[in-house]
Amino acid sequence: MTNKLIETTISTEPVFTGKVISLQVDTVELPDGSKATREIVKHPGAVAVLAFHQDRLLMVDQYRQAMGRCELEIPAGKLEKGEDPMEAAARELEEETGYRCERMTHLHSFYTAPGFSNEIIHLYLAEELTSGEMSPDEDEFLEVYEVSFEEAQQYIAEGRIADAKTMVAFYIWQQRLSQVAGK
Amino acid sequence: MTNKLIETTISTEPVFTGKVISLQVDTVELPDGSKATREIVKHPGAVAVLAFHQDRLLMVDQYRQAMGRCELEIPAGKLEKGEDPMEAAARELEEETGYRCERMTHLHSFYTAPGFSNEIIHLYLAEELTSGEMSPDEDEFLEVYEVSFEEAQQYIAEGRIADAKTMVAFYIWQQRLSQVAGK
Repeated sequence: MTNKLIETTISTEPVFTGKVISLQVDTVELPDGSKATREIVKHPGAVAVLAFHQDRLLMVDQYRQAMGRCELEIPAGKLEKGEDPMEAAARELEEETGYRCERMTHLHSFYTAPGFSNEIIHLYLAEELTSGEMSPDEDEFLEVYEVSFEEAQQYIAEGRIADAKTMVAFYIWQQRLSQVAGK
Repeated sequence: MTNKLIETTISTEPVFTGKVISLQVDTVELPDGSKATREIVKHPGAVAVLAFHQDRLLMVDQYRQAMGRCELEIPAGKLEKGEDPMEAAARELEEETGYRCERMTHLHSFYTAPGFSNEIIHLYLAEELTSGEMSPDEDEFLEVYEVSFEEAQQYIAEGRIADAKTMVAFYIWQQRLSQVAGK
């Protein structure tokens, strides 16, 4: 990593502040001294949860207005202001699936769309699940699925599973199964 | 997947149209008949490339204004208007790394941030590379790295690799190595 790649912010123009995201256009000085604009979507960050019930992955089916279709995804949701990501992961898991968990392990944190957004997803593994109560947000309608590995492979092939965080979760699951099989 | 999850668009308010993204706020009718707003970032779609030179992954180090830092990512870029994703993948690979490829295989297509954006990334495996010439976009400054698997693991641990598409690529690589080792 060298300094010769760094862009310097000259000015920031706020464009929009919404419920979830805000948009700004930054003017930056490039490494060669010329100028460019960068369209930046600010996001509060999110959590996602890899959780299994009897070796089946807990997933939620949810309508996504951005794509105009339903998607099967792992449980996830935005961080509330000042919220600890691990607590948010436990909260989202219970709200969306009705399961509580006794043990939560951080797996990865990654940016979803670094070309235009600072959204970061903190991915956790939830273990030792017990039944709780579903309580999705009032504008959130979803159905819970418990999906076998073979079903997940099929859903990926069909495009019903089609988002980056769930793909990362799927590959972590595959790797864990390979490790178990190799022992 | 059931119809009882579907949201119906009532109205769309355009907020911003930029060079890369546009933003709109949709008002939708929820399955229970109540209304909600959805903040949607429209994106033209992108491609990303998993490519190896002598068993090392080709990566680019690039400043990301959204996060205010450099990131090591696999080569990637936006689709141009009407462009075929596979041709775009070959174009981005050569522009960003200087390598041409003879064989391009589609691996997955996934949405990066389905909660607020329709951005889709088409991920390809590039094989049979030959040297070409780098020609990044005029507002794009980057450095090419050839990274071993162990280095990639270390960069993930350090957070220098920290984006979803590169995590997906890493796990596909790990899976391919496991399959080779298992033969």
